[in-house]
Amino acid sequence: MARPLILVSNDDGHFSDGIRALAGAMQELGDVVVVAPEAEQSAASHAISLHRPLRLKEIRPDWYAVDGTPTDCAYLAINHVLRERRPALMVSGINHGPNLADDVTYSGTVAAAMEASILGVPALAFSLATRKGFEFGEAAAFARGLAAAALERPLPPGLLLSVNIPPGPVRGYRVTRLGKHSYGFDVVEKVDPRGRKYYWIGGNEYQFEETPGTDVHAVLRDGLVAVTPLHLDLTDEETRLEVEGWSVSGFTRS
Amino acid sequence: MARPLILVSNDDGHFSDGIRALAGAMQELGDVVVVAPEAEQSAASHAISLHRPLRLKEIRPDWYAVDGTPTDCAYLAINHVLRERRPALMVSGINHGPNLADDVTYSGTVAAAMEASILGVPALAFSLATRKGFEFGEAAAFARGLAAAALERPLPPGLLLSVNIPPGPVRGYRVTRLGKHSYGFDVVEKVDPRGRKYYWIGGNEYQFEETPGTDVHAVLRDGLVAVTPLHLDLTDEETRLEVEGWSVSGFTRS
Repeated sequence: MARPLILVSNDDGHFSDGIRALAGAMQELGDVVVVAPEAEQSAASHAISLHRPLRLKEIRPDWYAVDGTPTDCAYLAINHVLRERRPALMVSGINHGPNLADDVTYSGTVAAAMEASILGVPALAFSLATRKGFEFGEAAAFARGLAAAALERPLPPGLLLSVNIPPGPVRGYRVTRLGKHSYGFDVVEKVDPRGRKYYWIGGNEYQFEETPGTDVHAVLRDGLVAVTPLHLDLTDEETRLEVEGWSVSGFTRS
Repeated sequence: MARPLILVSNDDGHFSDGIRALAGAMQELGDVVVVAPEAEQSAASHAISLHRPLRLKEIRPDWYAVDGTPTDCAYLAINHVLRERRPALMVSGINHGPNLADDVTYSGTVAAAMEASILGVPALAFSLATRKGFEFGEAAAFARGLAAAALERPLPPGLLLSVNIPPGPVRGYRVTRLGKHSYGFDVVEKVDPRGRKYYWIGGNEYQFEETPGTDVHAVLRDGLVAVTPLHLDLTDEETRLEVEGWSVSGFTRS
């Protein structure tokens, strides 16, 4: 049987330890092509470069760097680099840090996977949920296991899983939903050497609501890997009914 | 009765015609504070600046520019500029161009509103769905009508509506769900004067699937304003059940 083609990307850059661990794990499952940002792009979110051209550099065979965002990388990989051979799976990461709760909407790691999913390639995003002591061995082993399970079956083309792996030995996993987070709603004001003020977003308090069943609870409370299926249809059906009950003065609803 | 406080932001920059039209319309409904990017930030998506400091410039009373993304603007506005007085409503736009279908995940206009919604301030994002001949009068009138309807009632704190207004006279509106789009999956390859290749994302084909009930269908087919309620919980409940049926070799599901 032909080996599946697996596309690998991330937001920390093509040289990061996380992507090397992930690409290494995927090489046991199929042919691997890496297309990742030239520079670190954390918190780039789903930004796409429509107003400037992009450069694509072949670092070595099947390993490319793009001077753009994670979304640009997934787009160029699927629609240009791999246009002759469609990947069976796209994997993103392993991110140096967690992507829990609402963080998935800011995350470059998840955005690369979102773009693959929009382009019809099933995608898995992996994040190592720690702030220090990045040791990717266990996370890569779990990524290999989950990717193997995914490759075993026909997948919906829009499949998108966000996976957060706690540091240390992996004790097991749970299929979760997204929790909620808060940056603590802080703004830190400082003064520069010229006497002008500047501001930092977020203080030291990074809080999560630890509701059972969420990714946050699984990772931070129970020390389990959290596997959260995502979709990109942000329509809020409940609120639709409410807004249909409004009347907008001077305008007719059809 | 005290006039409500309305926060205005966008992604086209604090000087754009769209934000001036929107701020003008809101001044009829309440006290208005503008906090918007210093430079154009289209397709900035939900990027947040956690790794660099931000400058905040008072352009004139109640009108501020931030050297960051739309998300940064909403965050600094709510947690710093307006920390003494919580806005009743946040409005974003009016974007110079549509934000239909999956585009909401790339859009800076929608991202600013998303951030307000995450911070508990109900938010409306407005986009003028045309590529040329930007005339904001009708769109601003509709924005005023919808904001007035929103301010009349207690709103869920996470309320987030994305509104696309066709150019020309407004014939009415529809409460919609998100459609699907495609950039045509094109990559345009060019060669620079030094003989090096570079790439543009997307060709000329920008296509939508025009399913009835969607924002795309309402705006492009029926010429109506599309009001789409969004939420930020991207959890895909259906796929959760499917993934719970997988087995990941070597790892236990709890």
